Amino acid sequence: MDYIKKPGVIEEKSFQIIGEELGPNNFTHRELLIIKRVIHTTADFEYKDLLYIRPGAIDDALKLLKEGTTIYTDTNMILAGINKRALKTLNCSVVSYVAENEIAQIAKDRGITRSMAAIERASEEGINFFVIGNAPTALYKLKELVEEGKCNPSFVIAVPVGFVGAAQSKKDFEKLTLPMITVRGRKGGSTVAAAIVNALLYMLVNRK
Amino acid sequence: MDYIKKPGVIEEKSFQIIGEELGPNNFTHRELLIIKRVIHTTADFEYKDLLYIRPGAIDDALKLLKEGTTIYTDTNMILAGINKRALKTLNCSVVSYVAENEIAQIAKDRGITRSMAAIERASEEGINFFVIGNAPTALYKLKELVEEGKCNPSFVIAVPVGFVGAAQSKKDFEKLTLPMITVRGRKGGSTVAAAIVNALLYMLVNRK
Repeated sequence: MDYIKKPGVIEEKSFQIIGEELGPNNFTHRELLIIKRVIHTTADFEYKDLLYIRPGAIDDALKLLKEGTTIYTDTNMILAGINKRALKTLNCSVVSYVAENEIAQIAKDRGITRSMAAIERASEEGINFFVIGNAPTALYKLKELVEEGKCNPSFVIAVPVGFVGAAQSKKDFEKLTLPMITVRGRKGGSTVAAAIVNALLYMLVNRK
Repeated sequence: MDYIKKPGVIEEKSFQIIGEELGPNNFTHRELLIIKRVIHTTADFEYKDLLYIRPGAIDDALKLLKEGTTIYTDTNMILAGINKRALKTLNCSVVSYVAENEIAQIAKDRGITRSMAAIERASEEGINFFVIGNAPTALYKLKELVEEGKCNPSFVIAVPVGFVGAAQSKKDFEKLTLPMITVRGRKGGSTVAAAIVNALLYMLVNRK
């Protein structure tokens, strides 16, 4: 029964270990807060080389969060992983449409994925803060909407994981000049996406 | 617009690529279904060496699922990641108590983590199928309850991730003779936990 039972203490010590194992680096303090939290959630140090944080993107994300934005996520896992107390403190909210029956019907009728239909809905609703952690098709659809002038996101987290389309979709998406955070290559996913959002939230409100 | 838009096709192709990159191995067909799905969800081939599937554990898990069991998860992310349609087909359900106000109060009053308080509740309710993907303290608490004769799970997925206590908690838990699937070392987490549950579900019902 001598294990540590205080989550705050566990997290602090974890971040200390991660910092020590990361060693010397050129990341800014705020970049490190994101990188460390992603490593904390995956125990995978490869992310220090895979995370791409576009210069200025953290400022853009924090500006949105301070204004009380609505965050769109492409999975319910990401939605579940975002700290709701921090969101509430900032008058922010998070939505996902991918599991809705109406979206499933639209996707079926049009022969597209539910993820794509859901992104279209989010775009129509004027969402500015997108978190894509699962579906390459969602990311391609978002890119198309941007290129067609139908959507102009202020900040995007683009971290689909996988073996078919994920790496390429992120590489293609990076060509847009939008403020963004991506994970290069195959890795990424819902826990990574949620960790990035939470790292941004904790820059503005106390972790609890 | 020439990217693949059918999730079923994407997944099939992904599994084919994973199989090719895994190369020759001695896993059974059913073990491979679990290992491949975990790699599919993380894009991390290390899991082929880290996953420990106790002999007989898959049979025990499937038996519970066929009986219509209640699965306990230690995070809402895992809960969100489990395929609800497959659960429903099998008359199974999934619960998590870690975010409940009553559990928070008990944890505060007793100076333990919410994860620990939530595991106690699940144990009292006679849950047989535990999925621990986040909190080493939850796993230690479950171990204590087993050793005290207060809980006798029929199947446990023990995959906390992290730098303080996670690896040790799993190593200690493995000493129990229970049917279990674990991830050795620091890695694991909610997406890994959900992937293992879904791999088991898809052995019994069609993936949709």
